[in-house]
Amino acid sequence: MRVGGTHMNIDGKPYRTIWPAADGWAVEIIDQTRLPHALAIVRLETLQDAARAILTMQVRGAPLIGAMAAYGVCLALRRDASDEALDAAIDLLAAQRPTAVNLRWALDEMGAAVRNLPRERRVAAAYARAAEICEADVATNRAIGRHGAGLIREIAARKTLGEPVNVLTHCNAGWLATVDRGTAIAPIYEVHDAGTPVHVWVGETRPRNQGAALTAYELGAHGVPHTIIVDNAGGHLMQQGLVDIVIVGADRVTANGDVANKIGTYLKALAAQDTGVPFYVACPHSTIDWALAAGRDIPIEQRGADEVLIMSGRTRSGEVVPVEIAAPGSPARNDAFDVTPARLVTGLITERGICRASAEGLRSLYPERQGA
Amino acid sequence: MRVGGTHMNIDGKPYRTIWPAADGWAVEIIDQTRLPHALAIVRLETLQDAARAILTMQVRGAPLIGAMAAYGVCLALRRDASDEALDAAIDLLAAQRPTAVNLRWALDEMGAAVRNLPRERRVAAAYARAAEICEADVATNRAIGRHGAGLIREIAARKTLGEPVNVLTHCNAGWLATVDRGTAIAPIYEVHDAGTPVHVWVGETRPRNQGAALTAYELGAHGVPHTIIVDNAGGHLMQQGLVDIVIVGADRVTANGDVANKIGTYLKALAAQDTGVPFYVACPHSTIDWALAAGRDIPIEQRGADEVLIMSGRTRSGEVVPVEIAAPGSPARNDAFDVTPARLVTGLITERGICRASAEGLRSLYPERQGA
Repeated sequence: MRVGGTHMNIDGKPYRTIWPAADGWAVEIIDQTRLPHALAIVRLETLQDAARAILTMQVRGAPLIGAMAAYGVCLALRRDASDEALDAAIDLLAAQRPTAVNLRWALDEMGAAVRNLPRERRVAAAYARAAEICEADVATNRAIGRHGAGLIREIAARKTLGEPVNVLTHCNAGWLATVDRGTAIAPIYEVHDAGTPVHVWVGETRPRNQGAALTAYELGAHGVPHTIIVDNAGGHLMQQGLVDIVIVGADRVTANGDVANKIGTYLKALAAQDTGVPFYVACPHSTIDWALAAGRDIPIEQRGADEVLIMSGRTRSGEVVPVEIAAPGSPARNDAFDVTPARLVTGLITERGICRASAEGLRSLYPERQGA
Repeated sequence: MRVGGTHMNIDGKPYRTIWPAADGWAVEIIDQTRLPHALAIVRLETLQDAARAILTMQVRGAPLIGAMAAYGVCLALRRDASDEALDAAIDLLAAQRPTAVNLRWALDEMGAAVRNLPRERRVAAAYARAAEICEADVATNRAIGRHGAGLIREIAARKTLGEPVNVLTHCNAGWLATVDRGTAIAPIYEVHDAGTPVHVWVGETRPRNQGAALTAYELGAHGVPHTIIVDNAGGHLMQQGLVDIVIVGADRVTANGDVANKIGTYLKALAAQDTGVPFYVACPHSTIDWALAAGRDIPIEQRGADEVLIMSGRTRSGEVVPVEIAAPGSPARNDAFDVTPARLVTGLITERGICRASAEGLRSLYPERQGA
């Protein structure tokens, strides 16, 4: 049982993924490229540090990228609070990752918070807004957790007492992908902490293995029963009746309910439909791109071939080394995301509740977007 | 352009995957657990050597497992040609891998070839039958190659001249999975050697990476253009129109056309159906299990968690080392195969031609099985 408010624990010590340093201006993060092999904290002092943290995926996960970008604007303004510096910071940060819309959302929020202020008030206002964005993320995720928990509890109620609900997830949409608590994993923490037996199938999520490296790490640290599988195995487990519900996160949800998420999500959604397993997507409002009509318009990030051809891991002596795993000389292609059509999504779990993955469903929860 | 008959080349030197040693009684194989990092030949002298080669996957691929089992019976009879030794050898070899039916098929063939002979004639008859099984495998694969090539040429005819046909495959059903020439890859070699431009998307095939390690290796050695992708990417590439046809192998096809193949095949078949991409399964007659009505009855091999949690690769210094890639302490599950329902299979490519994946389709090519 977790104690002590909204921070997730590692070995009993509470952590968020990003926080202001003790000096009140620098920003500290957990370097997620070092997990699961080492828990390393990195101090960021400049806009460039923040941009690099996003690009190199020291921070990743759509909501966390947004929070990092917000603090990146703070660090930039601290050096130069001019309009030009603000615009340049927003442009630089936005360019680091193309698919997650939270990045753009957070930058728009930061721009709106400081642009009309005199320069001397911009830094304080920026730090205040970045902190608000982080707190709002945690509150949003807690709400997603409560709404999603209802789905898991419904399944638990149909099971023999004590039999766990089997949730399959892909990539990492846990607390490491957010400021705290997670999106897709938030419902799992919610029911686990309240004593409902739950077991998570963790797809390893090649090529960067965020499932095996991050989701398994955070579930293990929190004491949630889980089992790592290769991405290929998800459909087979569903065929065998070993999956009760699929819950994944999202990098961008378009106005019609199409979902861009980590590459491979589409395949799990197809298997869920084919086997009658409910397939839910956890998406905070910052993930919804009201300006895009459908998933075909989402830019899909192309990443380097080395992520496919080289893996890092711990040797027997405990050293972390990269190893080449493929046939020498063979090229690779590395699309980072795919788009799951709304027709394959049972529902979207937002902080306002659960809705159909459709324009009507989304508008039912966000009536203020009626004209979008 | 390949020359010199039915042997595939590595660096210009012709190889099969298995052959009688120069002394005429031992058996030599390419140790596929060492590929793609090293091309190592292993000499097998006993039944136990043969059983271990199958269990440890020094040889793998349904047709090659069958050929190895045939020679395993030869090695056993050479030491002891009694009925008891024959039965014990067949039982031991059959127990090494449960899913591929070719193993059982080859052992039945070997039993039938020697059981009614006097002991002193059994060894020679066994070696003769094993050699026949190997030659028949190559002839079968050539026929599959010719039939499948027609499918690729039809697609090529609809393309701009010179634009390659994009074939997606999963796991390794190339010459390394057979005695020579391959099953799913045989049509690709056939058209490539005849000058039709073809490009292969090679799914890496976690957890053992037979795609990235073996298929990429043999396509590269033969000069066939190819690109490695993670298993998660297959559906996205199909959505993007970058896949013209999927061709995979099979470990067992049941009488109704259901297909057991490497874990993850089912997900590719779902994506192919969803995107309208034809999905073909190459299956020699030895892969067809006439005795099983449907795929739900196929035993699915469970393999060790270490295959998921530990990967081997080349360090910068060229040493091949195992590295742990997942969160320490997290368990893993490792189902080696899944079953693709016949309804998702566009057609089966056999040595007798192409048929629907159905009882009627299979019987149209194998009328002698009418009563099966």
